[in-house]
Amino acid sequence: MTFARFDRYVERHARSVIERLQAMCRMPSVAARGTGMRATAEAVEQLMQRAGAGTRSFKLGSGFPIIFGECGSGPRCFLVYGHYDVQPVGQLTSWSSGPFSATVVDGKLYARGAANSKGDLVARLAAVEAYQKSFGKLPICLRFIISGEDGIGSPSVFRFASEQADLLRAEGCIWDDGYKDSQERLVISLGFKGITFLELRVHGARTDLHSKWGAIVPNPAWRLVQALATLTSPKGVITIDGFSSHIAPISAEDAEALKHITLDEAELKREFRITHWLRGMRGHTLVKEHIFGPTCTICGIQTGHTEAGPKTVLPSTAMARLDFRLVPDLTPALVCDLLRKHLDLRGFHDIEIIELGNSPLAKSSAQSSVARAAIESAPEIYGAQAIVYPLDPSSGPVGAICGANDPPTPVVSFGTSYEGSNPHGPDENLRIEDFLQNIKFFGRVIHHLGQQGKQHRSGIRSSSALVLDKV
Amino acid sequence: MTFARFDRYVERHARSVIERLQAMCRMPSVAARGTGMRATAEAVEQLMQRAGAGTRSFKLGSGFPIIFGECGSGPRCFLVYGHYDVQPVGQLTSWSSGPFSATVVDGKLYARGAANSKGDLVARLAAVEAYQKSFGKLPICLRFIISGEDGIGSPSVFRFASEQADLLRAEGCIWDDGYKDSQERLVISLGFKGITFLELRVHGARTDLHSKWGAIVPNPAWRLVQALATLTSPKGVITIDGFSSHIAPISAEDAEALKHITLDEAELKREFRITHWLRGMRGHTLVKEHIFGPTCTICGIQTGHTEAGPKTVLPSTAMARLDFRLVPDLTPALVCDLLRKHLDLRGFHDIEIIELGNSPLAKSSAQSSVARAAIESAPEIYGAQAIVYPLDPSSGPVGAICGANDPPTPVVSFGTSYEGSNPHGPDENLRIEDFLQNIKFFGRVIHHLGQQGKQHRSGIRSSSALVLDKV
Repeated sequence: MTFARFDRYVERHARSVIERLQAMCRMPSVAARGTGMRATAEAVEQLMQRAGAGTRSFKLGSGFPIIFGECGSGPRCFLVYGHYDVQPVGQLTSWSSGPFSATVVDGKLYARGAANSKGDLVARLAAVEAYQKSFGKLPICLRFIISGEDGIGSPSVFRFASEQADLLRAEGCIWDDGYKDSQERLVISLGFKGITFLELRVHGARTDLHSKWGAIVPNPAWRLVQALATLTSPKGVITIDGFSSHIAPISAEDAEALKHITLDEAELKREFRITHWLRGMRGHTLVKEHIFGPTCTICGIQTGHTEAGPKTVLPSTAMARLDFRLVPDLTPALVCDLLRKHLDLRGFHDIEIIELGNSPLAKSSAQSSVARAAIESAPEIYGAQAIVYPLDPSSGPVGAICGANDPPTPVVSFGTSYEGSNPHGPDENLRIEDFLQNIKFFGRVIHHLGQQGKQHRSGIRSSSALVLDKV
Repeated sequence: MTFARFDRYVERHARSVIERLQAMCRMPSVAARGTGMRATAEAVEQLMQRAGAGTRSFKLGSGFPIIFGECGSGPRCFLVYGHYDVQPVGQLTSWSSGPFSATVVDGKLYARGAANSKGDLVARLAAVEAYQKSFGKLPICLRFIISGEDGIGSPSVFRFASEQADLLRAEGCIWDDGYKDSQERLVISLGFKGITFLELRVHGARTDLHSKWGAIVPNPAWRLVQALATLTSPKGVITIDGFSSHIAPISAEDAEALKHITLDEAELKREFRITHWLRGMRGHTLVKEHIFGPTCTICGIQTGHTEAGPKTVLPSTAMARLDFRLVPDLTPALVCDLLRKHLDLRGFHDIEIIELGNSPLAKSSAQSSVARAAIESAPEIYGAQAIVYPLDPSSGPVGAICGANDPPTPVVSFGTSYEGSNPHGPDENLRIEDFLQNIKFFGRVIHHLGQQGKQHRSGIRSSSALVLDKV
């Protein structure tokens, strides 16, 4: 079978699909603001139905709806995760045109959400449509899970995963995070680090005091600093008791994959405006640490008076937010437990730990069917092997979706954006060419998964119990 | 000589003096806001002239005027420091009546600035007037230095002290900070700790980054925490290299004075709502540490995202404000130097130190003439010995005023307020009874200083070069 027909369909309908993406990007679905979320959720559902999917909207508690859609059939079933919410727009003045005007200039579509990740969603549904129009029915069953809470910690996704594990039973999951790197190579990830996001709090006097009391009144800011300083070394190595001994060694497969990954160190240093990497690392060591190094990041500290003007106070409270990015075999619960024990052992019983959110890691083998389908399909579209990250340094609710069933569902992640997409910043944009290329790529992935099915028929059947009514 | 006539004068004119204080308190001279400062400065000058003083207004650069007034004459000259600016009022709703309405309720005058320290100023000038009306001319020369910048770091006072050292040549200085403690005992201080107020800053990447970079990008928040943690021990002892070796031992005179000081520990703990003092100190150790312990206080830390809502960022900058309260022989310059060396030795060259302000300490002997006049006059008015602090744990521009000449001018400090005056908070108030008592007390102090003069005539003459024109 050749894809000539499919590609022609994509090209002939390109304008209409781009317009569909523009319409979607004109809906300002900023989850953190909560405006226009219902309308966007409905638009997502219509888009799915247009691609022939049966849909259902899951409204969990006060969360934003998760749009679930199923299309295709066959013995093998795969999940497609995406989200319709977008990041806040930040300073309006830093945008060249309105963040929701979705203007196309020089082959780039500028809009908040274009790259992250309405482009992925529209491209994937367009590929499903093109596949059906070109080849007839899909060779596999695809289940779309489209969240409205990616920017706000995904509480509904966690609840959905625990309540609807049956719907998430699948042979693999295709995630929507990915880009072309600065050398225009497609990046494919085989999982994401886990995360646990914590707040440490210490309380002192009832109110901020005159700092003349500093010689005799305990200062919560000092307590916090002293406690924090025991968590890492001055060189930035995590020193929590027992932490490093829980980290799994890197497998031979992953070590091999790491060899093929490079970071454009000079370009990144320029972009970040830093003079050196942590501990002066570079080359292979830097790549290995970036991908397989756990992190303990101070995301913020607030205590006392920090506004303009002199004010010498002894603070009444001190607070730090920490996030840990977790590699195999670290789990959020384990990290919390180790942290508590570590602090207690040093007399820091007064440091309160508040869990703000967490997500387990998800990691798959390059041998999983979804990984193979993506990796093997890439050269045909992108003209070169993709760069395969055995683990993406970022995190998301992927551990919940893929861990809803046991064994966990293998995940692969790729997307439509590029190095210059600036997904959380101003002038977020998507190159139209990348977008259309991704539609074609996704068609190949679907087909590849179907072909695998023909080779081994031991897959998981689509649940027939599901009634796809809109609720 | 008896004070019956003086006291009768004070009592007969009490209503008028209270009205004078009320009028002064109705002028909202909040230095931080800068409103009504000129009018209040003029009112201060008129008040001085009413007490028979020649006056001069010093406007230094863009600062608020310092009102200088001289009254009396004689071979011996003493400084009287005060200020006409007041603290910001804070939340208006937390005041029972307007902060500038100066209402008298149940014998208390409620107003921002009543206790800190318009009450002191009006009382001292009223005592000068009463003295002259009762006994004729003052037996000494008094030089009033009334600042408008006590709440904003006193820049004009520092400049005045360096430019007009001649005007500050005196045998002693009477400062305006003081109160009756919870047991209604007058507190007299013989000096104030010095202070140096610093900001530490560390820079990382150009902007806050996605925290997925935490494994390889240096985090300025960690650098700051690691550096800060080397400055104190987990128990709150300052561990800066060489710091403790510069601290002078407590003299025999001061050790004796410490024996007579008690803190109402239970009441203070209730007020602060704390369960214990630093390092579990109590009793004599606590008093000694409060008065002669140097401090290194974290007044504030700000880095990264600390507002509501989840945001996992790797901060681009981290900032901490520290104040050091300095005991003999620590100086601001020495502390800055020790801190820089301490950080450099540990590789923290990247931590920037910014000096926000400082003031040297001032400390006198109980044997100085001003100290003896106050200490020996107290029992007659207050019915008991005053509690003498060899050093007040707070700080101010006293080191500049008293250090303008060499040797430094001895200082003594006392005032009109009481434990419940709440000088920086809402419903600041002054008890009318304390106010009138303080007028009588100040009359005795003047007289005592005059009597000393008769015993030894080796004082310092009033500068005859001064032309007291208003400029």
